[in-house]
Formats: sequence, C-alpha cells, structure tokens
Amino acid sequence: MLTSSDKSNELFLGIDGGGSKCKAIIMNKDNKILGTGISGPGNPLHGFEQATHSITESAKLALEDAGLTHIALSELVAGVGLAGVNIPVLFDKMADWHHPFKTIHLATDLLIACLGAHDGGDGAVIISGTGSCGFSCVDEQHSIVGAHGFPHGDKGSGAWFGLQGVKQVLLSLDGLVEPTLMSAVLLQKLNCKDDTDLVEAVASQKATFYAQQANLVFDAAELGDEVALAIVNEGAEYINSIARTLMAKNPPRLSMLGGLTPRLKSWLADNIKSNLAEPLHEPEVGSVLFARQQEAKKSVQQSA
Amino acid sequence: MLTSSDKSNELFLGIDGGGSKCKAIIMNKDNKILGTGISGPGNPLHGFEQATHSITESAKLALEDAGLTHIALSELVAGVGLAGVNIPVLFDKMADWHHPFKTIHLATDLLIACLGAHDGGDGAVIISGTGSCGFSCVDEQHSIVGAHGFPHGDKGSGAWFGLQGVKQVLLSLDGLVEPTLMSAVLLQKLNCKDDTDLVEAVASQKATFYAQQANLVFDAAELGDEVALAIVNEGAEYINSIARTLMAKNPPRLSMLGGLTPRLKSWLADNIKSNLAEPLHEPEVGSVLFARQQEAKKSVQQSA
Repeated sequence: MLTSSDKSNELFLGIDGGGSKCKAIIMNKDNKILGTGISGPGNPLHGFEQATHSITESAKLALEDAGLTHIALSELVAGVGLAGVNIPVLFDKMADWHHPFKTIHLATDLLIACLGAHDGGDGAVIISGTGSCGFSCVDEQHSIVGAHGFPHGDKGSGAWFGLQGVKQVLLSLDGLVEPTLMSAVLLQKLNCKDDTDLVEAVASQKATFYAQQANLVFDAAELGDEVALAIVNEGAEYINSIARTLMAKNPPRLSMLGGLTPRLKSWLADNIKSNLAEPLHEPEVGSVLFARQQEAKKSVQQSA
Repeated sequence: MLTSSDKSNELFLGIDGGGSKCKAIIMNKDNKILGTGISGPGNPLHGFEQATHSITESAKLALEDAGLTHIALSELVAGVGLAGVNIPVLFDKMADWHHPFKTIHLATDLLIACLGAHDGGDGAVIISGTGSCGFSCVDEQHSIVGAHGFPHGDKGSGAWFGLQGVKQVLLSLDGLVEPTLMSAVLLQKLNCKDDTDLVEAVASQKATFYAQQANLVFDAAELGDEVALAIVNEGAEYINSIARTLMAKNPPRLSMLGGLTPRLKSWLADNIKSNLAEPLHEPEVGSVLFARQQEAKKSVQQSA
C-alpha cells in the first residue's frame, strides 16, 4: 500500500477545468492514472468560487477513486488547465488563490490540450466542441487563433453550427430563404408547433443549447439540404483556415479535438484531413505533463 | 381645472413598454397629450414584477407631469403595448395582472407602433432599433415577419450590425479575413490595446452593447471599407425582404421606425425607399388609439 511518506513526492494531480465540468486525475511517476474525479464547472469565467470549489472537489474524488484518501491535498503537485486564464485578470485571480495543494502550475485549457495530444511535445490542435479555436506550441512559442467566444466568434463550433441552423429555420419559416429539411426536425426536437413556439424556445439560450442543435445541421447536409450544406461548408472552411494558420508554424504534429470532431472532420479539405494525427492523451494528462515540465525547470534553476 | 368627476371618463393612458424603458402618456379626448412619464424596463420578457412596477410608475409620473395627481389610476382606461406579449404565456400572465387601472387593453409593441405610425388606420411598419422586424395590420389581419430575437434573429438590427462588425474585426485581427477600417475604431472605442483585450471586452455582452457598435459599421461602409460594405448590404437586403413581404399584404401606408432608421434607410432599395411614409405618431399614442378602438367595440357590442 502507498503511504504518504514514500510516494507523495511522485504523485501528480492533473486538472482540466471547463465550462460544464472539471476533470481530475491522480497520476504516478510511471504515467499510470490511479484515479479520476469529475465535479461541476471549473472555468473561472463563470466565477472564482465555483471554479476553486470544483477543482478541490474533483481532486478529492480522484484521490478517493485511487484509494488514496490518506494522502492530503497538500502533498500533491497540481497541473491545472483552465479556460479563461489567457485573460490576465483571471490568471492573476487564480494565481492568488490560497489553494490546498503543495504547488500549483496554472496553464490555459489550450496548452494542456495540446501537450496532452502530443505527449508533452511540440504540436498544434484544432478544437471544435461547444466553442472553437486553434492553438500551437512550437519552440516554446504559443499561438492562438480564434477562441473568441459566443455569439461573436467560435465559428465552426457546435454552438455556431446550431445557431446558423436555428437562424436559417426561422428565416425559412418567414418565407425569406428557401425551405430547409432542418425545419421539421428542429420544431419536433424542441417540441414546437410553429415559429412562435420556436421563438419562445430559443429565447435567451446559451452556447450549450445551440451546440445541441449542431447534429441536425450535419444530418440535413448529409441528406443534401442546400441550406444546411451552405452552413457546413462555411463552418468547415473557417476550420480549414485555422488549420492553415497553424500549419504555417510548422508544428511536428496536428490533431483535432472536441465533441464536434467526428461530424466535422470529413468536411475539411483533403490536405488538412491527411495532416491530422490522433491525439495521444486527454487534456488532464497534459496538465500533469505541464506540471512535470515546470517542476523540472524549477530543479534545473535550483541546481544551476 | 379638471376634476375627477367631470373628466376621468375621457382620459386615456397610453403605455409603450420596452426592454430598456417604459413610456406613458395621458391623453384627453381631443388627442392632446397632457403629460408624459418614463420609468424602467416595461417588457415582461425581463420579469413580470419589473414590468408591472414600471407601467404603474410611469403612469403616476405622467399624471404628475399633467398636474392631475388628484386623478386615481383606477379612473384611467389604459392601452398597454408590450414587447413579448405575442408569446401566449406572457400575454396570459399580463392579462391576469391585478392592475390598478379602470380597464386595461393589452397589445403587442408591434401593433401599437403600427397604429401610432398610421394614426390608428391600416398599414405596415419596418422596425430596426436594437432588434428588427416587420408588422402589418390590414383588414384586421396581423402579420409578423422576423422579431426572432438576438443573437439567432433580428438581422438588419443595430445589434446585428454591431455583432457582424465585432465578428469581422476579430477575424481580421487573426488574419483570417481582409483588414478592416473598423478594427482601429472599435479597439479605441472599447479602450482595448489588442485582440485579447477585445475578446475580454465583448465577453457575455448583450444585444444593447452590440447595438452601440452599429454606427461604426455604417461609418466604415460610408468610407468604402469592403468588409463593412458587405455587412451593410447584407443587413439592408434583409430589411428589403421584410419590406417586400409586408408590401405583398397591400398596406395603405408603410413606415420605418426604430433608432437605426436614419443610418439604414439610405441603403434600402430605391422602390422601397420611395414607398416609405413618415410615421404620424409615437407608439404610446398607438396604445391610446388601440384602447379607444377596443372601448368603441365594447360599446357597440353592449348596445347590440
């Protein structure tokens, strides 16, 4: 059995804190995941209290899952990847947190996703889930494309595809654009009789709601619906342009991540599809890899 | 001096309750506005309590402005035009209100705007302010085009133009579309150094924020900026299509209303511009005209 004295220095906590959930893993020095935990939103964009609570909670759950409840949080070196900390004020707020861990290494969700996808090495990632963006890490230079948010950005994301679908259905129900196969499906899915119901159903909806409507746009496009095809092609072309911007940085590997990947990948340009490599690990593993790299730098600095 | 006994039957209250403010007027039988009042949001989409409070408050202010504080609210026949009451659940909620007036006649903001613009007669209106829509009232048949809300609808509105402008600026700062004159103006206006600042400044912003950015899109278009021109032409073309849909109903008059009218009108198709007639009264006058029409119907029914 592991005890606090002989193993704690070799246990790492990896956190991937997103807008809907916070994932935690406990990993040993041999890259074995000993336990995982999932809690609520871990994204400081939606509040500092919520984020820090979710991070701590998911860490405790991961320790419990690993059968390591005798290990204190204060013995863990934590790599914490969070959406939003590219914004300086949020980074500073999180960095000032009186956290319960031994050490904390804070990174953006993009960096840990990229490190995870490429086993800690250089590379680039295209992400299309609820939101969209591109990120590269080559020779310690980081570069972001997109990541602008909804509804003003995040083109080619689930929320963007869903929003375009809803827009076109509303316009077609008014007779202002050609009819679309998406109309009947959307009305039925949202339990709406007519466009008045639909206007009510979509009032004040957020990105996650629209992301849930993305699949019906792809379904209609695959059936040859002209309106849906135009949306899918426009979104895919934006993702192509993100990929081209990333490829200009000469990353050794390029991966595509996020929930929309299975639907969207086949619509990308051939020379981009053929360049995509499978991601090697999940983002929370990237958090551990990041923490280890930072600890290694620290010990080099200390011994120098 | 007017007294409660001799005049109250002839005094009408007209309410125009919108998302940012609620306007009230007191009007006598000779169509003279005796007083006006303005209070907070009067739109039940943003809460029943707020809406009913604003309606009552603006009515009291209008009585005060008219020097009629000795007249009780319970003596006023009220015409109340509200955004959102086209949605049945909100109409029912407002209709069930234990209001302080003698009688209440509830109508949509669109109907009272149309009645106001055409002095109580048939006609149609195109509205482009923060939101956008079309409405016609011909032979007692009402028809709505658009009015879908933001960000999924309201094309050709202030919020839509502002959102398109912000989107294109963000894409151009990433090098994904051609540079635009709007970039420097937007960054300066929002006090941003770079695109990271801009992403932070626009995070979670609502329709009213985007509507405040509409003017800079028109400014850039008028200077020949290609990106802004494409936005303005696309928005204007949508408003043209609303106008054509309305004109197919053969309204005797067509007017354009809303805060964006002065900027947008000149971009519309010539045969639409030449069809536009100046609106005759404000929407709150339309509320009084509506209340009078309903009272007249009631007395016809009672005498029949």
